[in-house]
Amino acid sequence: MRVGVMGATGYTGHELLRLLRGHPEAETVFLGSAAHVGADIREIYPGLPGQWPTLRAEETPAVDILFCALPSGTTAARAGRFLAAGIKVIDLSADFRLRDAAEYEAWYGLRHPAPDLLEEAVYGLPEFYRADISAARLVANPGCYPTAALLALRPLLQAGLLEASSLIIDAASGVSGAGRTVAADYLFSEINENYKPYGVGVHRHTPEIEQELSLAAGQALRVSFTPHLLPITRGILATIYARPAPGVSEADLRRSWEEAYADESFVLPLPPGVWPQTKFAAASNYVFLQLRLDERTGRVVIAAAIDNLVRGAAGQAVQNMNLMLGRPERLGLEQAGLWP
Amino acid sequence: MRVGVMGATGYTGHELLRLLRGHPEAETVFLGSAAHVGADIREIYPGLPGQWPTLRAEETPAVDILFCALPSGTTAARAGRFLAAGIKVIDLSADFRLRDAAEYEAWYGLRHPAPDLLEEAVYGLPEFYRADISAARLVANPGCYPTAALLALRPLLQAGLLEASSLIIDAASGVSGAGRTVAADYLFSEINENYKPYGVGVHRHTPEIEQELSLAAGQALRVSFTPHLLPITRGILATIYARPAPGVSEADLRRSWEEAYADESFVLPLPPGVWPQTKFAAASNYVFLQLRLDERTGRVVIAAAIDNLVRGAAGQAVQNMNLMLGRPERLGLEQAGLWP
Amino acid sequence: MRVGVMGATGYTGHELLRLLRGHPEAETVFLGSAAHVGADIREIYPGLPGQWPTLRAEETPAVDILFCALPSGTTAARAGRFLAAGIKVIDLSADFRLRDAAEYEAWYGLRHPAPDLLEEAVYGLPEFYRADISAARLVANPGCYPTAALLALRPLLQAGLLEASSLIIDAASGVSGAGRTVAADYLFSEINENYKPYGVGVHRHTPEIEQELSLAAGQALRVSFTPHLLPITRGILATIYARPAPGVSEADLRRSWEEAYADESFVLPLPPGVWPQTKFAAASNYVFLQLRLDERTGRVVIAAAIDNLVRGAAGQAVQNMNLMLGRPERLGLEQAGLWP
Amino acid sequence: MRVGVMGATGYTGHELLRLLRGHPEAETVFLGSAAHVGADIREIYPGLPGQWPTLRAEETPAVDILFCALPSGTTAARAGRFLAAGIKVIDLSADFRLRDAAEYEAWYGLRHPAPDLLEEAVYGLPEFYRADISAARLVANPGCYPTAALLALRPLLQAGLLEASSLIIDAASGVSGAGRTVAADYLFSEINENYKPYGVGVHRHTPEIEQELSLAAGQALRVSFTPHLLPITRGILATIYARPAPGVSEADLRRSWEEAYADESFVLPLPPGVWPQTKFAAASNYVFLQLRLDERTGRVVIAAAIDNLVRGAAGQAVQNMNLMLGRPERLGLEQAGLWP
Repeated sequence: MRVGVMGATGYTGHELLRLLRGHPEAETVFLGSAAHVGADIREIYPGLPGQWPTLRAEETPAVDILFCALPSGTTAARAGRFLAAGIKVIDLSADFRLRDAAEYEAWYGLRHPAPDLLEEAVYGLPEFYRADISAARLVANPGCYPTAALLALRPLLQAGLLEASSLIIDAASGVSGAGRTVAADYLFSEINENYKPYGVGVHRHTPEIEQELSLAAGQALRVSFTPHLLPITRGILATIYARPAPGVSEADLRRSWEEAYADESFVLPLPPGVWPQTKFAAASNYVFLQLRLDERTGRVVIAAAIDNLVRGAAGQAVQNMNLMLGRPERLGLEQAGLWP
Repeated sequence: MRVGVMGATGYTGHELLRLLRGHPEAETVFLGSAAHVGADIREIYPGLPGQWPTLRAEETPAVDILFCALPSGTTAARAGRFLAAGIKVIDLSADFRLRDAAEYEAWYGLRHPAPDLLEEAVYGLPEFYRADISAARLVANPGCYPTAALLALRPLLQAGLLEASSLIIDAASGVSGAGRTVAADYLFSEINENYKPYGVGVHRHTPEIEQELSLAAGQALRVSFTPHLLPITRGILATIYARPAPGVSEADLRRSWEEAYADESFVLPLPPGVWPQTKFAAASNYVFLQLRLDERTGRVVIAAAIDNLVRGAAGQAVQNMNLMLGRPERLGLEQAGLWP
Repeated sequence: MRVGVMGATGYTGHELLRLLRGHPEAETVFLGSAAHVGADIREIYPGLPGQWPTLRAEETPAVDILFCALPSGTTAARAGRFLAAGIKVIDLSADFRLRDAAEYEAWYGLRHPAPDLLEEAVYGLPEFYRADISAARLVANPGCYPTAALLALRPLLQAGLLEASSLIIDAASGVSGAGRTVAADYLFSEINENYKPYGVGVHRHTPEIEQELSLAAGQALRVSFTPHLLPITRGILATIYARPAPGVSEADLRRSWEEAYADESFVLPLPPGVWPQTKFAAASNYVFLQLRLDERTGRVVIAAAIDNLVRGAAGQAVQNMNLMLGRPERLGLEQAGLWP
Repeated sequence: MRVGVMGATGYTGHELLRLLRGHPEAETVFLGSAAHVGADIREIYPGLPGQWPTLRAEETPAVDILFCALPSGTTAARAGRFLAAGIKVIDLSADFRLRDAAEYEAWYGLRHPAPDLLEEAVYGLPEFYRADISAARLVANPGCYPTAALLALRPLLQAGLLEASSLIIDAASGVSGAGRTVAADYLFSEINENYKPYGVGVHRHTPEIEQELSLAAGQALRVSFTPHLLPITRGILATIYARPAPGVSEADLRRSWEEAYADESFVLPLPPGVWPQTKFAAASNYVFLQLRLDERTGRVVIAAAIDNLVRGAAGQAVQNMNLMLGRPERLGLEQAGLWP
């Protein structure tokens, strides 16, 4: 299982290396970096233990599977080459998440570099696309916010338990979600002791959420999605508001989750009254869920917590790798979250 | 202007002392504390500069005006005595916020100790009850979450610009909102790098928000209100979702705020596109507002940021004091927020 | 390898469970808790995945090895019973760290409950007592601050490279070092955006550091040790000042570390100029070291970083367990630190 | 009192505006910024209330006194022009702090642009240079670390109570000390949950501390100075180690502080046993001090806490402005620190 990581020096890259180091069957033989060719990754991350391949810029690495942790727009342009060389690809960017190239162009402002590959690409949410992922050559690893929202909502919409037009997703993320972007907005002094909404009404994860929820609901739907920036490094909490379909009880909603996730390793609905906290998921691949049907207002409130770098990025990518290479899905991913 | 503070050793108490120290006309002559009688407040807060009255437990202090920063249920039992002694009272607890004693009992689980005073008590939101506050002997200082929500929503509802049944208030608060409560839930190790919802559907600020919004809307309404706990010390952000009334534009909504707050010192609608951050308000009495009408979903998203200890508690109380004593409302309250 | 944990509900207890869950050979069959008998540990820590034994209070559990994560003074009183039942014991309290019962009584204010066991107990710092630990029935897991200080200083003192009377250890710890103690001092609001020294000149880790450094130096020595409380959850940094022995160069000092740690898995001296950061060690068992001989002042400055809950407590305890049970020392402990 | 601020858009600039807004006699008539000419400062800092002069680049503003919050090397080149125009200057950079241009060149790597002005410049530490400051046209506002260290040590050295060769200053600063520098090192994700030393042995505040302590001691001395970066926005704590001169008691040391600071407004030695915390000083101009003579080791441990942006920069600058313009030194500076 020869594994490569393109974009190894970003936060997602580091997180992939951390998880791959603990994976019993993966051998990381290639680290790609445009900016640091020839360097040892430990020059950038001196705390990373172990021996690692020198950072390289080669075009087509000799690996069985390749994680691409590159900016949106850059993987799609190379994916065809990788696939032609017999390399399976897990793309952690947004390039292959939207099935419709026009949507991609509308929200990302980029002409899609490889629209012909969109049909082949599989959306890498294992709980819902497991068989397709196992057979795929090209997997689009979901966005962090969509992962939280979809795991909370897909079963409920699939079962017709929620009014499709009523969805409001109010979500908050740790700053690592922005990657290692060096900008004043992400300085410690401006984030610490601060909390703010951003991208209100225009965040790029919106069409991804809508695509997958529409598929689950069997009808086109739109959501209000408002992300916020939390003064934490890791973690996403999505708080979701919806109207139940007529006659639906809280028990119906819970049962839907229980059925969907009874055999799942990583999705953990909590006991009634115990609400998710981002720290439950810290440094782990687990997802925590809770809901409440508020009789006073007739609305359901749902919450989902993940670690954006693990289940929202590198951990889910490793989960996909395990499936694509025919290994047990949980391999190397069952670490408990940190507490405290 | 002889001022007293009951409950001086809590966080709200300290914040009152900090503001009163900088107030040009207030002389703080009495500090009340049940637990620390005879102590100097600097034994509890060694960083507080200046000379302060010794902490005392006396029943009826010799002051013109008294801030009561005591747990809910304790001020109401004493307020009659204070008023009878000619002392004006600003109550920072919830005792006099709800006009209906039955609502108080339902949400706080306490029989109201002084229902006869409810009619006299004035809800201390200066921008909407200025004249009443100026004439009042007893002011109920609003809750922190309600302050943020009401300043954002009241003008819009009063003008009939929002559908009254559509309101969802998703809010997040710094931990100082819990006061100096010593409990595992508020330990640094459990809050740091963490974010969570709490009191979902049952938070006690719900009826306060509903009372005041219903008055503004001219009809009884209910809101979905979900508070969250932020890993910050100070600050509240309320993110609010609503449906506009038919035909209402974003410009209509903005105009409503502009008209309501044109002559106000402390409520600052931000330029379009600039969203509030809790840090804008840090250690200040200012309120920051923004909104957006999302054409895709037909919903309005509104955000309001305050410092929960200043505008959400002690600062608003001083604003009320200024009004009750016939001083300029802004006196001692115009410090800019900290940045960074 | 049947393993038990006494004091499973504290932070160190949780960290032991997190590490044992990832350990390929340990089976955790007993969780002890005085306060929560009969409960499931997930009622206290809902984010902990997996199935765990019910919390119990039994006196002598049926295990091969027992971690005691209890307050100082409580393990020593039971250790004899555990040993008599054939259970190997790793004590994470201070009960068996000091060889001299009188020192224990002087610094901890407790009469030592089992002075007869002190001779048998082995100080569990694997890099220096590996053979003794491998043969031990009773291991005293080192304190968190001592672990950082001793790994930095022992080789240098053993080689006579530092003046024994010149040592100043200025250290800072994350708040989890205080355990789950519910006290106002550890509230988020009082720790966040704050930094302070504590226990100046009287911290209980002082005699432990002095005992082990005196043994290394071959002479009785005293150190100035000042701990500080950091607004972080995990991590210790020790910054150490010393005078080099006459004629000693920076290269001599580095060589001493290199020789001492060439074959060690977990102690990583960094390349010259790269100073340790607590985050390098986050959630890992690794120790990071750096030093500089400042020609201007003639002093050596040394820094060491660890995660106080892993290498400073639970990780080191698992390292000791591996040795005591004849397993490879690194088993289950090679996870890389988190970044970011 | 027409006041100007050069470099108004940096953190120190914002802090000056915050303090000047609360100052009863200062009128801020000029804001200088090279990068944002023509903009309103509220475009950069939307949370800053009030009306402000448009940002301008003019060479010689029409003001009585000018704060220069510019990078080192830039103020010195302009100071002569300002002085010639009759403008008093308070320089918050390092340009005029070192009396010896050669020292400046050695530590800052810059040829001094105005060595002829060095003799006239007064070191702006009011407690020790009050008369000179009052008469000065050009004041060098001290560095943040030096302010903390000098206020702790100068009286003790002046009285000959410490061995001059024994000083070790281990200090930690909040990140705002780095200003609004946009670099990966200051990203939230890399600072949060982290603590590290930096500039070990080479920090530029070293010669400033040594200059002023040498003057106090009446002999040239050198110090070991190790700064660390704290995951907080504001605050400096200096923990200092020294040997007392023969026969000196802890009482002698305390008495020295009491005598030096009896009539001072801003320097507050704490009661024995109460150690400074950075939060005591948050957003205030106060300095908190404590010490302990440890009989076991024969060393004195001293701690000093300030807010690096107030007493360590803008607050001290306003204190100097008050003196230079013949106003009461405390004017506009007596706000209590925030708690929590």
